[in-house]
Amino acid sequence: MNRYAIFHKPESNFAYAATKNTLTLILRVAADDKFDQVEILYNNKYDFTKKRYACKMRYVASDGIFGYYRADITLPDARFAYIFRITENGKIFYYSEEGLSEEYRFDVAYYTFFQFPFINTADVMQVVDWTKSAVFYQIFVERFARGDFEKDDKYINTPWDGKIDRYSFTGGDLDGITDKLSYLSGLGITALYLTPIFSSDSNHKYSIKNYVKVDPHFGNNEKLKRLLCAAHDKNIKIIIDTVFNHCDSDHEIFRDVEEKGRASKYYEWFIIDGDFPDRKRGNYACFADCKHMPKWNTNNPEVRRYLIDIALEYLSMGFDGLRLDVADEVSHEMWRQLRREVKEKFPEALIIGEIWHNNEHWLRGDQLDGVMNYKLQKILADYFGKVPVSAEDAANRMNGLLIANTGMANAMALNFLDNHDTPRFFRTAGGNTDKLLCALSAMVMFPGMPCVFYGTELPLDGAGDPDCRKTFDWSFKNQSETYRERFQAILGLKKQTALSGTDAEITAENGLLKITRKEDGESVAAYFNTSGKAKPVVIDGEILFALNCKDNRILNDGTLVVKNKNH
Amino acid sequence: MNRYAIFHKPESNFAYAATKNTLTLILRVAADDKFDQVEILYNNKYDFTKKRYACKMRYVASDGIFGYYRADITLPDARFAYIFRITENGKIFYYSEEGLSEEYRFDVAYYTFFQFPFINTADVMQVVDWTKSAVFYQIFVERFARGDFEKDDKYINTPWDGKIDRYSFTGGDLDGITDKLSYLSGLGITALYLTPIFSSDSNHKYSIKNYVKVDPHFGNNEKLKRLLCAAHDKNIKIIIDTVFNHCDSDHEIFRDVEEKGRASKYYEWFIIDGDFPDRKRGNYACFADCKHMPKWNTNNPEVRRYLIDIALEYLSMGFDGLRLDVADEVSHEMWRQLRREVKEKFPEALIIGEIWHNNEHWLRGDQLDGVMNYKLQKILADYFGKVPVSAEDAANRMNGLLIANTGMANAMALNFLDNHDTPRFFRTAGGNTDKLLCALSAMVMFPGMPCVFYGTELPLDGAGDPDCRKTFDWSFKNQSETYRERFQAILGLKKQTALSGTDAEITAENGLLKITRKEDGESVAAYFNTSGKAKPVVIDGEILFALNCKDNRILNDGTLVVKNKNH
Repeated sequence: MNRYAIFHKPESNFAYAATKNTLTLILRVAADDKFDQVEILYNNKYDFTKKRYACKMRYVASDGIFGYYRADITLPDARFAYIFRITENGKIFYYSEEGLSEEYRFDVAYYTFFQFPFINTADVMQVVDWTKSAVFYQIFVERFARGDFEKDDKYINTPWDGKIDRYSFTGGDLDGITDKLSYLSGLGITALYLTPIFSSDSNHKYSIKNYVKVDPHFGNNEKLKRLLCAAHDKNIKIIIDTVFNHCDSDHEIFRDVEEKGRASKYYEWFIIDGDFPDRKRGNYACFADCKHMPKWNTNNPEVRRYLIDIALEYLSMGFDGLRLDVADEVSHEMWRQLRREVKEKFPEALIIGEIWHNNEHWLRGDQLDGVMNYKLQKILADYFGKVPVSAEDAANRMNGLLIANTGMANAMALNFLDNHDTPRFFRTAGGNTDKLLCALSAMVMFPGMPCVFYGTELPLDGAGDPDCRKTFDWSFKNQSETYRERFQAILGLKKQTALSGTDAEITAENGLLKITRKEDGESVAAYFNTSGKAKPVVIDGEILFALNCKDNRILNDGTLVVKNKNH
Repeated sequence: MNRYAIFHKPESNFAYAATKNTLTLILRVAADDKFDQVEILYNNKYDFTKKRYACKMRYVASDGIFGYYRADITLPDARFAYIFRITENGKIFYYSEEGLSEEYRFDVAYYTFFQFPFINTADVMQVVDWTKSAVFYQIFVERFARGDFEKDDKYINTPWDGKIDRYSFTGGDLDGITDKLSYLSGLGITALYLTPIFSSDSNHKYSIKNYVKVDPHFGNNEKLKRLLCAAHDKNIKIIIDTVFNHCDSDHEIFRDVEEKGRASKYYEWFIIDGDFPDRKRGNYACFADCKHMPKWNTNNPEVRRYLIDIALEYLSMGFDGLRLDVADEVSHEMWRQLRREVKEKFPEALIIGEIWHNNEHWLRGDQLDGVMNYKLQKILADYFGKVPVSAEDAANRMNGLLIANTGMANAMALNFLDNHDTPRFFRTAGGNTDKLLCALSAMVMFPGMPCVFYGTELPLDGAGDPDCRKTFDWSFKNQSETYRERFQAILGLKKQTALSGTDAEITAENGLLKITRKEDGESVAAYFNTSGKAKPVVIDGEILFALNCKDNRILNDGTLVVKNKNH
């Protein structure tokens, strides 16, 4: 029994409520510890000293160092007390809030049991229903498609098929997206994530001057309305990149402060060291080192009010959710208030935050629904990249990632292979489309909401920003039919009931990474290798997609196998 | 290097902001691991890949299994990235979000460093200033003192010096407290915690029928006002027991639901299984198994509004804080809203919750300030009780307790030896006043706010409820002068600057438990044994209190030593 490894914590990713009287409990132990059995002893906290029920926990995952036991227990009551009973070589250990012991005093257990004192429904995080089968497509608006050929296009400085640099304007706009909705729907896309579209001089529009006026490069508010209506008609949701960490230094509020300094009623809306903000000295908080993007002071309730009203306006316009830019640098208080107000009026609205790092602090049900899943992106890049880590390493890290949050937060993570801030995954995969498809399948198989970056279906190639932001090639001249079919088939997987839940079993088998999803009696398993020779095979049960392959057994020499079994 | 033991987590008790640009960072390792040195490499997150500063961490505590290194680092910027560098036998290890490694790629560190992305002041928990030197005294109002001899006292069924049972009424009231304020002040008390005082048929008044009308047994709202004014005149704060988990089944709102069932506009204010609540079937959520105390449904925003308005009214009346009864069974959403509204109007109001168990989930700055410190109470009872645990065990558990929360939350824990729900500590200490004083000293020396239960200064004896709720003996016939002097001197310790901070060094030395407090260049150390022969000694520096003792060296055969040193 490794005393350093054993761990449990109430009201955390190790103990959370799934319904008003069901608790998911996870016990961490050393991966190499072998136990006869692990049980939970539990009851209503007021009856625990008198009587306990026992529930066997099952071993569900390992991250290489630690192993995890899990049980989902239901009580007629919403009040839980519990401890763990571990049997190792016939010897019994107890694990409670006081730690590991060979004996346990049930008579004074009210001091030492673990508890989940009451499952209050207001605190139970709900998975937004439409996200369960959503397949996202991220559009960098300036580069996806141009639809409006009437607009004043003197700002365009680069032809659609020209070479892109950081300052290129090529003409992509909202009408372009509206025109391509049928195309996207045909591809299997059910939701769009748009990078910012409101008034801004930059091509990416992350430096905003007016939060509610569509930038004229992209159209106007009427065109936005048309896009939203047309998308909803096709059952496509749209979430919008929402930039509340900072604005543009030409935003009228910042300009007011520049002009009046401390005398401005907006002085406290930014974080300024001195009487006046000074762009040259840069004596104010900003995004990264970009002095033209001053940081909003979201510690100030007036700023929170101003920005949250904008968020509510976005949802009133018809957006189905928010993708919060640089979410981790904004105050938690801001996100709590935003969630409260958003979910009250728009309970089905999705709230996703850009957080590259440890994110559990935002995902406890009071702030975000999910995050941009950079952690998964890095595992996939490391596994399918140039010098692949082993299948075992990848499985361990995937399990570590899943265990770090609740099932609900995992189900609402926005999974992606690449985006406007990373190299194209096609580049990461060494230009090998089979590898790219394997990675895409792994991403779709992973709990969460898959999101493909525009052009992955061609696929577009590219290094980091700005190379990853090339224009879409509507001639499709480099797209192979096989690739396109497989691409669509892989996205189609997400329709499977088995993929709609919050959990996955992830292991390494014979050098292959294996991801199994189960839900409502259905199951799908997929195997992945990194050889770059993917001959996807469907075996053992109902056929999901054929992918031009005649094999029907598991190959471990370069084969992606997708397996579906009713059980 | 024990890979199972090493642990760190951003935005938690292991990484929290103390000021707008200072971060407290703690790294957990195995207690028996010996390192050459442990460092933090850190910088602004946008500059981390280019350059890092190194800060040596110091070993601050052990809980027996784990050891803890700590550093408090300050940056001109509020954005932190960091990793740990550990040197063991000349070999270097790195610990980042990706775990332990012998090499670390600084060029892609933006994927793997730990971060505290921005210290937003709205999220920084503040220690309420007046609590730093507060000495609390808990009054069970029915049993402390009677002041009003004019009132209709037909409800009194037990003489003041009679034997108490669960249903005794003896006549204690608010006037009694007002009369004794000078006495309390003389004892060194600076704050009172009153058990409930509003309309209720019970003697404890935890089953409330009217939340804002003082119960006639105890007086009226005019008398309450007088008490609050008189207390404030003497610089005594008063916090009030606030019972928002449940009410009395005779509360008019519950009565309305009993009468009208689903037709009542208050039906959703409780958690009822059926059309009508039925006291006999008990088909509604309640406190413990007490059907006469139906549980408020704090998932309902209307209920939250109703109860929070009451909390605000208490603070408007003049109370200085709230002690929230059964805080752990009430929704987190309720406490978030309560904190927001309370702190906005009454920034100096203290919010304490009754939580016996793991409490970190409530103490992140968005809900409570502190909790009733049951964990400390049990350690003290185990150490100073009949079969004492070793000084080492006590020190380990105390360190484990402190490490489980931020310094701010620890500083606002309400520490106590006993209360109306436990046996009197005098009983736990086997009737030995020296042991009781030792425990009292340890409680005062521990970070947090000491709180003595009324009558401890006599001391009153008693088993659990109702025996611990005896009337105060105003004849003082069993009080020894030595005991009283020592009692006061121990409470006086809390005035020391050294005891005003958030941290403590706790170790076992020569079989004695040692607690050292340091703050602003001052330091106080105390040693405790469990022999029951306390000969308190003051040595080595400024004298704090003499406690009738002439020795001036550390004795390990039954000696409490208090040491004060300017350094």
